[in-house]
Amino acid sequence: MVPKNVLAKTAARIKCQKFPFSTKNAKETIAATSHDVSTKQQLFITDPISPGSIFFLPNGTRIVNKLVNFMKLQQQYKYGFQEVITPLIYRKSLWEQSGHWENYKDDMFRVEGNDLEKEQYGLKPMNCPGHCVIFGRSSRSYNDLPLRFSDYSPLHRNEASGALTGLTRVRKFHQDDGHIFCTSDQVRNEIKSCIELIDLCYGKVFPLGQNGTPTEYELRLSTRPDKSIGSLDDWNHAETVLKDIIVESGKKWSLNEGDGAFYGPKIDIILNDHAGKSHQVATIQLDFQLPERFDLKYKDKDNKFKRPIMIHRAVFGSIERFLALLIDSNQGKWPFWLNPYQCMIIPLNTKDPELVQASKTLQKVLRAESDRDQSPVPLHSMHFNVDVDCRAEPVNYRIKDAITKQYSYLIMVGAKEIESGRFAIRSRESREVKHSTTKEIVKIFSDLEKNYQ
Amino acid sequence: MVPKNVLAKTAARIKCQKFPFSTKNAKETIAATSHDVSTKQQLFITDPISPGSIFFLPNGTRIVNKLVNFMKLQQQYKYGFQEVITPLIYRKSLWEQSGHWENYKDDMFRVEGNDLEKEQYGLKPMNCPGHCVIFGRSSRSYNDLPLRFSDYSPLHRNEASGALTGLTRVRKFHQDDGHIFCTSDQVRNEIKSCIELIDLCYGKVFPLGQNGTPTEYELRLSTRPDKSIGSLDDWNHAETVLKDIIVESGKKWSLNEGDGAFYGPKIDIILNDHAGKSHQVATIQLDFQLPERFDLKYKDKDNKFKRPIMIHRAVFGSIERFLALLIDSNQGKWPFWLNPYQCMIIPLNTKDPELVQASKTLQKVLRAESDRDQSPVPLHSMHFNVDVDCRAEPVNYRIKDAITKQYSYLIMVGAKEIESGRFAIRSRESREVKHSTTKEIVKIFSDLEKNYQ
Repeated sequence: MVPKNVLAKTAARIKCQKFPFSTKNAKETIAATSHDVSTKQQLFITDPISPGSIFFLPNGTRIVNKLVNFMKLQQQYKYGFQEVITPLIYRKSLWEQSGHWENYKDDMFRVEGNDLEKEQYGLKPMNCPGHCVIFGRSSRSYNDLPLRFSDYSPLHRNEASGALTGLTRVRKFHQDDGHIFCTSDQVRNEIKSCIELIDLCYGKVFPLGQNGTPTEYELRLSTRPDKSIGSLDDWNHAETVLKDIIVESGKKWSLNEGDGAFYGPKIDIILNDHAGKSHQVATIQLDFQLPERFDLKYKDKDNKFKRPIMIHRAVFGSIERFLALLIDSNQGKWPFWLNPYQCMIIPLNTKDPELVQASKTLQKVLRAESDRDQSPVPLHSMHFNVDVDCRAEPVNYRIKDAITKQYSYLIMVGAKEIESGRFAIRSRESREVKHSTTKEIVKIFSDLEKNYQ
Repeated sequence: MVPKNVLAKTAARIKCQKFPFSTKNAKETIAATSHDVSTKQQLFITDPISPGSIFFLPNGTRIVNKLVNFMKLQQQYKYGFQEVITPLIYRKSLWEQSGHWENYKDDMFRVEGNDLEKEQYGLKPMNCPGHCVIFGRSSRSYNDLPLRFSDYSPLHRNEASGALTGLTRVRKFHQDDGHIFCTSDQVRNEIKSCIELIDLCYGKVFPLGQNGTPTEYELRLSTRPDKSIGSLDDWNHAETVLKDIIVESGKKWSLNEGDGAFYGPKIDIILNDHAGKSHQVATIQLDFQLPERFDLKYKDKDNKFKRPIMIHRAVFGSIERFLALLIDSNQGKWPFWLNPYQCMIIPLNTKDPELVQASKTLQKVLRAESDRDQSPVPLHSMHFNVDVDCRAEPVNYRIKDAITKQYSYLIMVGAKEIESGRFAIRSRESREVKHSTTKEIVKIFSDLEKNYQ
């Protein structure tokens, strides 16, 4: 039997890896790029008043919200996750039960209130114990499994202050976190789903390869370490399942023998960015340990209580880190749907009030703004990030400025355009100017947004 | 001149009131109702492992997300707010600058990491200082004003553990918080907008009165207290502006002389719930003090630097508290758009695989789920909360169960329905059964959701 504190230390080390990892060098390059783009596009700032916590400015917040919305929709309506909102601070005793207090304490922020009993709390670095509390609260049947919880809570890890860099090494971050509670029979299908979602994300929606090609990534299978718990049969079964799924996927993969978590094998996703640097992003981990520590059980068909298996998984990993990779890949040339600068409207002559007014009216339509005396803005409506530049500057200067800011579309408004009802529009990617009605423009924008382009 | 620590103490006391207030008795009644409904509908749980922090279960999370989405849309596309995401922990020095450390310290959680310098942090009870940091970071011109930041960060206040009750007295909560930085000329229009949004919310979208009638509320104007800063002229001007707006609104109001914040007058919204109990919910506060303490300035038309005025405002106030008021008012009979139980599909005979399959297919269409091998679920799509009850229980039992759970709609699926393509559907409010196609049902649901009904 392995001493408990060794197990827990290993657990903390391995679980810590859920937070994406990359080499220091790659991180610094990416941090510099993020900083440059952020300064130009006003995405975020940092401040010594809260080292390692990002202040997302309105433009950065738009991008983060879009990323989270994308992931929520896929997780909820394609992969059967249910979102929960869980506390950020928990009594020390929870972290003792999970093993964090003993082993992860140095990387956690401690919280103190003014209770007479002077109880200590830990500011959560991970969501898993909170999800175990929810699972354990109700009586669960085999019918309820797999039960999949997703959570976008802010997490805090006490990284050394000298190591903090931009978006890549932070103290406060958000994960697209999820925990699946399932039976051993269900593990295969669940892991397969996780890989599919990773593929959808990195392969299709976020092509991080050179010139917008699909992200190159490989799966890394880590198997039973010297110190492990559970029967050898269980391990062999689990490893065979993981390997089968990986081989079946046809993806590039490698074996990292003996580097699994002590509680189960895992698959890490190693991404190669456009410069050929590698980063660990998504992860899928099998866990036989936390269900044990939290005494989680479900009633099986045979009326006996059994332990569920827990799968920890994240697809973006840290959203802050993922954002840094996106910026590094696109250098601020956001695809339309993510772009905080979707469209700039430029009245050709800013001294002509009719042109300025027409530009503002068009902006309002594209932003789908509602007047104060109108009914409430409806749910699920599309709103595009559209600005008007009516500064008293030459038209060429304003066009150049909008191009520098990487607006996806430029719309020019002149007397001819107003008369014909067709605005001159050109995209960032093509200098060709087309003439389109408001309705046609809305259609172009909507199609891009719906298709994550 | 008023001594600084007196000013700061008053500031902390007044600012604290931004967190909704109601009498202890009303709170306890509401807490009991929330608890009952939550148990039936699986909305949230609490646990001694994190006293005063809510664990929102999937159903509760759906409601919270809908409320936040509603408010985001109105604030962003009707009232010109820009959302930001700000840190949760800040060095002690920020809280000293804002006056919180000296005066609000006992109500704050202190956070400690493992820096060599052993710096203390405060877990934020309010967003205002963070927004001042963002404002102060860029050079601002009169052209940028009014600048309106919204923020939905979790906030923590160290309420005494004995006082914690359900959703109404918590330690972790979320506000629909906002801060407006503007010139004195703009105050009038900004306050008017705030009242309009409050009216939209309490008067129209969330009728908290008896039997769904508009919420009864009154405005309470609090004026210059004995201890105040700023010139008498400024105060008279500000109070006149507030009073003018209130009178113009035609709403019921009362004067609370001498109870304003030391930095400016304020309007609180006092809501009467369906049982006639009163609660302070929304608030609008003028603040001349924080801009001073953070040395905020903008360049005016005359090229001189001036201080902006800050308006603190919240409409829901605490979203947790607002949820408790909603539950108290509707007793779990949620309007369709907020209902975690929007529709239950009941196959008439669960032994008939065709009926069960048709029910599941209909569910998938109404939930707008996407198969794993299909393209990603698009942004802005509508997804309804639809369940299928195919337990091996008599049909009347299943219908009764769905009614008890307050499903907005029941759909019965039999052989006749499949053949005709028209499903038997009845609403919670009417026992009349209609026969509708899938397309017609989607239209009914979409219209309800779009119109916040």
